Amino acid sequence: MFTIEEGQAVLAAQPFSKLLGTELTAVDDVARAVTLQLQLRDDLRQQHGFLHGGVIAYLADNALTFAGGLALGPSVLTGSVNIEYLRPVSDGPVAARATVVEVSGRTAICAVRIGSGDEVCAVAQGRVRRVG
Amino acid sequence: MFTIEEGQAVLAAQPFSKLLGTELTAVDDVARAVTLQLQLRDDLRQQHGFLHGGVIAYLADNALTFAGGLALGPSVLTGSVNIEYLRPVSDGPVAARATVVEVSGRTAICAVRIGSGDEVCAVAQGRVRRVG
Amino acid sequence: MFTIEEGQAVLAAQPFSKLLGTELTAVDDVARAVTLQLQLRDDLRQQHGFLHGGVIAYLADNALTFAGGLALGPSVLTGSVNIEYLRPVSDGPVAARATVVEVSGRTAICAVRIGSGDEVCAVAQGRVRRVG
Amino acid sequence: MFTIEEGQAVLAAQPFSKLLGTELTAVDDVARAVTLQLQLRDDLRQQHGFLHGGVIAYLADNALTFAGGLALGPSVLTGSVNIEYLRPVSDGPVAARATVVEVSGRTAICAVRIGSGDEVCAVAQGRVRRVG
Repeated sequence: MFTIEEGQAVLAAQPFSKLLGTELTAVDDVARAVTLQLQLRDDLRQQHGFLHGGVIAYLADNALTFAGGLALGPSVLTGSVNIEYLRPVSDGPVAARATVVEVSGRTAICAVRIGSGDEVCAVAQGRVRRVG
Repeated sequence: MFTIEEGQAVLAAQPFSKLLGTELTAVDDVARAVTLQLQLRDDLRQQHGFLHGGVIAYLADNALTFAGGLALGPSVLTGSVNIEYLRPVSDGPVAARATVVEVSGRTAICAVRIGSGDEVCAVAQGRVRRVG
Repeated sequence: MFTIEEGQAVLAAQPFSKLLGTELTAVDDVARAVTLQLQLRDDLRQQHGFLHGGVIAYLADNALTFAGGLALGPSVLTGSVNIEYLRPVSDGPVAARATVVEVSGRTAICAVRIGSGDEVCAVAQGRVRRVG
Repeated sequence: MFTIEEGQAVLAAQPFSKLLGTELTAVDDVARAVTLQLQLRDDLRQQHGFLHGGVIAYLADNALTFAGGLALGPSVLTGSVNIEYLRPVSDGPVAARATVVEVSGRTAICAVRIGSGDEVCAVAQGRVRRVG
């Protein structure tokens, strides 16, 4: 449970997210969902002009961790991330919407869809755990 | 099968890898292994000063794809990546060494260890497929 | 898209599912969801009396494949399965409800929750592909 | 670290493994590897006559857990399993050889190859954790 302003402060404290231009555009406590978004700048592409798969992997990892934080509080670590790629992306903005699937004790399993507009380019699942 | 120079040309054509400063430091055709490496610059960190998990996920994705290319040729797509995080990293350089585990038809399963010096921060497994 | 009777005929043709006593109890074409269920017989347990994790893995694999069949037709193969375990299960019946998350061309990503009553013991994600 | 006799006693205490006829055929403390094996009986098949993917998933789960036990001691739980299927299997015996990839604190990441003879039908990676 955190406000969008609190989440944005965490994101602003991540130098790597600032490098990529990521924004936290939605936090929904009822649906337990968060949305991260970035513009598809040219320096985020791979050799064929598509968004680099590593940027998609970053978005998956980061959105899953934020969703885990909604369920478990601010001190969380992501243990596992499983990404399934579906389609390349060539235009932005690219959004990653992560939700809490299930919580058990100090562990949350979260899921995320990443895409541009209605086109989903990847889905992922991850395990997040409360620490401290 | 590609030479280190051919691999470096592919990496140099990835704007996102240039943004992060990734280098291809080894290609071993006999062991079917590749190593990607980057310096842990401050703009690659998360809010607690560790290397951002998204950079680790990027290294996993990219190293697995290069290893798949060793087995399957230059036109490959990565379908699935499963990352298991183990420890945070605070110092660099950070290397990702990926190997080909098994090939069947147009599909290769590859594995990667990512870490700094002797400390492994994550291991990952991925499915790569030849296209075209 | 298949009827529950067609799905049950496929399941009845799986000797391993008959050995375990699995039933297909729901097919929902609108929600694109299927439910497999089995009784927690004593011969499905591990050494501490809980349902064996391998039975959970079987349910994940099989339910994901059936859900993939809803999206892609009867000739499908499951390529990847990622299981996240949450809690042990000691009582049955145990149900696996799988849904179609996203379809792209000949590939579907499906998700499944496995549990007994309201208790979820595992969630999984898988990649299914149409063949032939 | 356990002897093959100790491991076999654990396996013999798993009713589900007895139902499937699984044997622990090797424990290698130096390579930190274990091998589980079963005969491809007809009641382990799916509707096209191949070994059911759920049996492969069970072998992956169980072999990873035994390998985790080599690294972490007898009280372990498997948290995540990621299976990549490669080829169908129609003849046995089917063996799953799992090794310890990396250990960090109470967590081990293990990998497994499952196949018959020289043919690998699946590879998997899993996270195992010491409990108690």
